[in-house]
Amino acid sequence: MSETRALTFDVFGTVVDWRTSIAREGRAFGERHGIETDWVRFADDWRGLYQPSMTRVRDGERPWMPLDDLHRESLCTLLGRLGVTVGDGGVSDAAVDELNRAWHRLDPWPDVLEGLARLKRRYVLATLSNGNVALIVNMAKRAGLPWDAVLGAEVARSYKPRPEAYLTTAELLGLAPGECMMVAAHNYDLGAAGALGFRTAFVRRPGEHGPNQTADLRAEQDFDVVAESFIDLADSLGA
Amino acid sequence: MSETRALTFDVFGTVVDWRTSIAREGRAFGERHGIETDWVRFADDWRGLYQPSMTRVRDGERPWMPLDDLHRESLCTLLGRLGVTVGDGGVSDAAVDELNRAWHRLDPWPDVLEGLARLKRRYVLATLSNGNVALIVNMAKRAGLPWDAVLGAEVARSYKPRPEAYLTTAELLGLAPGECMMVAAHNYDLGAAGALGFRTAFVRRPGEHGPNQTADLRAEQDFDVVAESFIDLADSLGA
Repeated sequence: MSETRALTFDVFGTVVDWRTSIAREGRAFGERHGIETDWVRFADDWRGLYQPSMTRVRDGERPWMPLDDLHRESLCTLLGRLGVTVGDGGVSDAAVDELNRAWHRLDPWPDVLEGLARLKRRYVLATLSNGNVALIVNMAKRAGLPWDAVLGAEVARSYKPRPEAYLTTAELLGLAPGECMMVAAHNYDLGAAGALGFRTAFVRRPGEHGPNQTADLRAEQDFDVVAESFIDLADSLGA
Repeated sequence: MSETRALTFDVFGTVVDWRTSIAREGRAFGERHGIETDWVRFADDWRGLYQPSMTRVRDGERPWMPLDDLHRESLCTLLGRLGVTVGDGGVSDAAVDELNRAWHRLDPWPDVLEGLARLKRRYVLATLSNGNVALIVNMAKRAGLPWDAVLGAEVARSYKPRPEAYLTTAELLGLAPGECMMVAAHNYDLGAAGALGFRTAFVRRPGEHGPNQTADLRAEQDFDVVAESFIDLADSLGA
């Protein structure tokens, strides 16, 4: 059995707490522009449009688009539902862009920086996210996430869980799938990676969707590692 | 005029001293396998095959191949000239692979780590090298080079100085060319980047090709910055 050389990370939900961060940014946006709504619900709704927006790209109904662009379309849909006009005397395009870039400013879960610092000594740490490169680079820069490489959907021009996203990432790292361990808080992501020969580490994030979360509360397959945090993951891997 | 957001780095010669490192690895390989030659000359010859090997890919005579593969072909050519047989009772394929990966183990110039640490506080630091992602990632891991993103030729599937290598890197960073500054020790590289709207910083590496170097001893165009080292570059940029 080959050695694990790289850990490839899902990011939204696994590394960063998108829900709290997006709600915070939405609230600030609402205060600036006099828009009242439940901003936690707004964050959930925005994230709720994530999979449907990628499905049309994955299915080839529309050409490749980076996640920033899909996020912005979803944001305009949600602002429309709130009766907010964009441009033409409403909220400016620049202000909408700024809110859209809230996804570049997500905060990591509290265990992440310590865990990654330990894991980095032993493994190549690469992102394997559906987030585009600029999004992940800007997020890392702000939060201090020490990635060795930012790969994933955009460099493969294919969204997870399509095989190309995983296989292109391993190939760019010069590794066989079996030398990579996918780290994610989502069963579907690890299932797809595992089917391609990746090793798998499930990190539980029971608060990703707030107190009433029902999905991904536990590992649903026999993953190689199941951990409660990135520190627990480092412990499990002896890093 | 837009602000510079990212520095994009040439790597071979600009960041790392390939000549000394390759000669050292060659010498060790020679001792292990009883091969005598001038290993500094060997390093120069190997590097000498670099541009010709890429030309055939750039010109579309052959399909895209990562630099590791081109390096290995060139290495086999040079070993053949030395009368060394690969496989079949000669030097094993694994030993040749190991020497080929010497390009993953190049040492940085002495000013690089201090300069990059300062520059990283202020700019996104991305590689824009003809080296493939695995090569640059492994080199960075060993040497402690703090890249925010490893981009360049392989993700663009196009070797510098073709425009795609530069433009794809800027696009993946979510930046306009004018928000990127190309950092290189080679006039041709900065000329190509500058023609696409990149800002340009020439860092003099008069020892890249040894004591008798004749090319790239000075900036041949009006680049935005001319520096003697990465520390000098950080000074010039106020980082």
